[in-house]
Amino acid sequence: MAARTADLTGGRPVVPSRGVLRPLGLSEVRITGGFWAQRQATNGRATLDHGREWMDKLGWTGNFTAEVGRGSAERRGREFSDSEVYKLIEAMSWETGRQADPARDTEIAELTTMIAGAQAAGGYLHTAFGRPGQQARYGDLAWGHELYCAGHLLQASVARARTSGDDALLNVARRVADHVCEEFGPAGRDAVCGHPEIEPGLVELFRATGEQRYLDQAALFVARRGRRTLPRHEFGWSYFSDDIPVREAKVLRGHAVRALYLAAGVVDLAVETGDDELLETVAAQFDRTLARRTYLTGGMGSRHLDEAFSDDFVLPADRAYSETCAGIAAIMVAWRLMLATGRERYADVIERILYNVVATAIGDDGRSFFYAHTLHQRSLTAVLPGDVEQLGFGGGPRAPWFEVSCCLANTARMLASLSTYVASVDDDGLRVHQYADADIDTTLADGRRVGLRMRTGYPDDGTVGFEVTAAEPGPWTLALRLPAWAAGATVTLNGEPQSATGDRVVLRRDFAVGDRIVLALPMRPRFTRPDPRIDAVRGCVAVEQGPVVLCVESVGGELDLDSLRVDAGTDPAADGGVTVRGVAEELPERPWPYADAGPVGQRTTLDVPLVPYHRWARSGPSTMRVWLPTT
Amino acid sequence: MAARTADLTGGRPVVPSRGVLRPLGLSEVRITGGFWAQRQATNGRATLDHGREWMDKLGWTGNFTAEVGRGSAERRGREFSDSEVYKLIEAMSWETGRQADPARDTEIAELTTMIAGAQAAGGYLHTAFGRPGQQARYGDLAWGHELYCAGHLLQASVARARTSGDDALLNVARRVADHVCEEFGPAGRDAVCGHPEIEPGLVELFRATGEQRYLDQAALFVARRGRRTLPRHEFGWSYFSDDIPVREAKVLRGHAVRALYLAAGVVDLAVETGDDELLETVAAQFDRTLARRTYLTGGMGSRHLDEAFSDDFVLPADRAYSETCAGIAAIMVAWRLMLATGRERYADVIERILYNVVATAIGDDGRSFFYAHTLHQRSLTAVLPGDVEQLGFGGGPRAPWFEVSCCLANTARMLASLSTYVASVDDDGLRVHQYADADIDTTLADGRRVGLRMRTGYPDDGTVGFEVTAAEPGPWTLALRLPAWAAGATVTLNGEPQSATGDRVVLRRDFAVGDRIVLALPMRPRFTRPDPRIDAVRGCVAVEQGPVVLCVESVGGELDLDSLRVDAGTDPAADGGVTVRGVAEELPERPWPYADAGPVGQRTTLDVPLVPYHRWARSGPSTMRVWLPTT
Repeated sequence: MAARTADLTGGRPVVPSRGVLRPLGLSEVRITGGFWAQRQATNGRATLDHGREWMDKLGWTGNFTAEVGRGSAERRGREFSDSEVYKLIEAMSWETGRQADPARDTEIAELTTMIAGAQAAGGYLHTAFGRPGQQARYGDLAWGHELYCAGHLLQASVARARTSGDDALLNVARRVADHVCEEFGPAGRDAVCGHPEIEPGLVELFRATGEQRYLDQAALFVARRGRRTLPRHEFGWSYFSDDIPVREAKVLRGHAVRALYLAAGVVDLAVETGDDELLETVAAQFDRTLARRTYLTGGMGSRHLDEAFSDDFVLPADRAYSETCAGIAAIMVAWRLMLATGRERYADVIERILYNVVATAIGDDGRSFFYAHTLHQRSLTAVLPGDVEQLGFGGGPRAPWFEVSCCLANTARMLASLSTYVASVDDDGLRVHQYADADIDTTLADGRRVGLRMRTGYPDDGTVGFEVTAAEPGPWTLALRLPAWAAGATVTLNGEPQSATGDRVVLRRDFAVGDRIVLALPMRPRFTRPDPRIDAVRGCVAVEQGPVVLCVESVGGELDLDSLRVDAGTDPAADGGVTVRGVAEELPERPWPYADAGPVGQRTTLDVPLVPYHRWARSGPSTMRVWLPTT
Repeated sequence: MAARTADLTGGRPVVPSRGVLRPLGLSEVRITGGFWAQRQATNGRATLDHGREWMDKLGWTGNFTAEVGRGSAERRGREFSDSEVYKLIEAMSWETGRQADPARDTEIAELTTMIAGAQAAGGYLHTAFGRPGQQARYGDLAWGHELYCAGHLLQASVARARTSGDDALLNVARRVADHVCEEFGPAGRDAVCGHPEIEPGLVELFRATGEQRYLDQAALFVARRGRRTLPRHEFGWSYFSDDIPVREAKVLRGHAVRALYLAAGVVDLAVETGDDELLETVAAQFDRTLARRTYLTGGMGSRHLDEAFSDDFVLPADRAYSETCAGIAAIMVAWRLMLATGRERYADVIERILYNVVATAIGDDGRSFFYAHTLHQRSLTAVLPGDVEQLGFGGGPRAPWFEVSCCLANTARMLASLSTYVASVDDDGLRVHQYADADIDTTLADGRRVGLRMRTGYPDDGTVGFEVTAAEPGPWTLALRLPAWAAGATVTLNGEPQSATGDRVVLRRDFAVGDRIVLALPMRPRFTRPDPRIDAVRGCVAVEQGPVVLCVESVGGELDLDSLRVDAGTDPAADGGVTVRGVAEELPERPWPYADAGPVGQRTTLDVPLVPYHRWARSGPSTMRVWLPTT
């Protein structure tokens, strides 16, 4: 790993001081069109305001006001609602970095003033604890989410600092962090928060400020995790990742978002402390999680009860939990691991999650969201009116809001900062990880300026065209990711075929402005078969097309999806839409569903149309399934 | 249906005033040996005291004392803990009916005095509401469990009255019921309790006392259910069976125990009011639940989050919920439906649940219990020390106690009263529903005395011998259930083969003392295949032997059960223990569990031993699976 100096410019979400890859900032990569540009526009136009409106309506912003602070007005929302305001500010910050917006700048400044006003003298900041009539500070570390909220504040403050000249929120965050270091430092409480998040927050604040004690405090929290200092709970210590010390664990477990936020912080810590053993430990945990505990969509966490990972290979399609936030947290981990190790396969993971969790989560209007992502909807989805909050969390259709509404701001901050996941710089040159209409303008490791224009209809089309728009003399490398599914991909450089094997195409030459590269990824739909240990989908296939998982959807429920069997011996067809050959079998009613032989029904052959999974439930109540039983 | 007069003698758990079958009481059927006698003995010897000890230790009994009532001592336990005391008294009552026990009688009398002391002037009785420092009465109908607890009190009082000359608890219950009728009557609160149970309680109290208003009040509660008078909740109104009026629903849904207790009460109500339409409505709901929402074990409810039925055919083996109490509640419904309709197949359901849920629930010592019944344990079960309470509810090994410990007293009351499910009387004679060593001494519908001795090694052995021990002149019918799985059963009467088809053997003659009947049920182990719509176990078989579901268990986890594939083309062998032919396939590690082809590993053929599912997790930490993938 090469060490680098951190800086506050360029709008980078994660700025490790060393690693195989250097991330680019919002000012260095712009998404200019296509699939994600449309979603970024909706995010900036609708989602941020939608979030603000609901947080005002529900009193989550109002909790920061003096009336609540003095106890003369009731605090509203759950104990983690402060964090939603912070995540929204983080999203707004990336959005202003993506596209200047003075009105939004003013909004952020006003919110910052409001938040600063709620900060206690010693730096403590949480609207649900320690004030008149409230529970004492840190009186409920398991569930209070105090350090969790602080962690999101730290991340938001860093986002704001990296996308503006405004360090007002950073100053609030410094005082929070100083307070945390004092309260939980070596001589302080020997404790951790029930919900990890302070860890990546502290490391990022260290990166933004150079303050060593923040990094040390993150190290202390990571060292303490897994010692069972949190109280016994019916979900077990694993729920909090507090069952096994971080360095001893073999896989992610318990509450998925908790485990993934912690893993992100551990990667950050390992990178900043040069602890390669810790880095490889958390990489192995994540790799094993990918191999045994991840849905085809890249979604993680299969249990509704505790929003948790289950045992290896317990990945039911029915009621798949796979919450939006776990998808985003998994991107955070994968991105950090890729920056540190340069392993391109983590970009495959990011792509999978983006197209099949993040893109699925958002309604077309940017004002409704999936919290959880089932892979099999047997009964017709309900439709919620636009002004109705979904109680609790979890199942159900896209809703305008959830009582636990972490998914909205999380999605918003991911979309606003998405361009920074497109490419990075390594010691040899430029690496492109994600394919989209984008303009890249950055500097190589040796300081030479480089520009690249990328244009594509991806993921509808597998052809990605590149044109070098800036180059200085001397050779450098342009590396283009080859997704694991893209066997048979081809690439040309100024019309000349190039080798395209392994996990990336590597083109090294003395590039000139105007050089053209065309990457052709095979986009024919393909059948995918699950590991036989995933009992829940045994005997089924899924259909994927490029990075996109497809599904069968029946709007109105006219087609009984559970009667379908597909012929996995005949390749999916792709003229017009994607279809697979199959039969619908009308099964007889039986009083008991178990017998020495299965039921036999009337079979009708048919071509079954598939749609992208991320498109489902957008055209009214429907049933849906991703995994299709074979004939 | 023939109408009959209710009475308080003979120790019958359910005494409908009409129906195709007349149930027998504890004094008419005794289980004398074998599988269930052993469990009844353990129940009487250990479980009842175990329950009492924990309820004393946790303060659940103490809640009824004056100190708590005056607010000078803290009330302990969850809002439904009163009901556990009542269910334990119910269990103790059946146990004293099964086997006289003056010490237990004294204990019941003392508990009754204690409970009576906590009853308010107007009859209201709940230790968590309405007293100094407590929430107001009926201030939380959705979750308060006030009427639920009252319902269990009514059932306990009826059990006590039917097994003793002591009507002290019945008098307490009358005052409770009078209060409920006043508070929730036609002119009272237009409301229902979040947890049904008052409904069957009121009908039983009507049966025991003849008080019509109790029946009318039950009818009112049933009519109100499904009108969404309970508050909106994230689990939906279906959780409370409050989404659809009882007469309009097509299937049981929501929280399984809630739905099943309600269904039991609805059958009771329909029978007492002669409402055949209502009876057939609830029968159809239960039948559809059996056909689409029931595990192979007879267990019901597949979700952990809300302990609820899921959509049709969502019956994962992994983390199958199937809580003990839902099994017992399903027996309550099946028994009531069989008494009303005479449909013998409900006795198949009862048998299935008894051998695969109830028998599985209890530890060998009678002092540990499963709350939920997974059908697939992938990671080694943990072992809880004998003095540690399991927090919350749901998963995990057999525990000595649960924070929500409804399963213990429910199992205890079922076991203590089990002999009454063995046989019944119809207009033609005697019907035997369950096979066990038992002595039956009762009267036929026309008043003639009849005696039958049954001896068997069932379920280890399929031969059931009967000897007529009392008979009066004239013909009558002896009907013996033929389980649905028992194709090829044979029967002889005094050595002469008889016809054995349909759902029961019907032998009609002028029986004489000493007549011998031998029923031979085929007990060879057999493969069972699931409905293809149960995705979670597609491509799997289970092995059943008689009424017993078998499983593969690996004590210590040495055998990787998830690597097993069985050859379903070769019948299971049964010399010594049951085995199936199979292979263990050591699958290669792959970084991603989805691909265009499945992994191929080294295969080793082996004979896989199976054990009864009810025996699993009794010999130390183990892994287990019921459904076995086929080669």
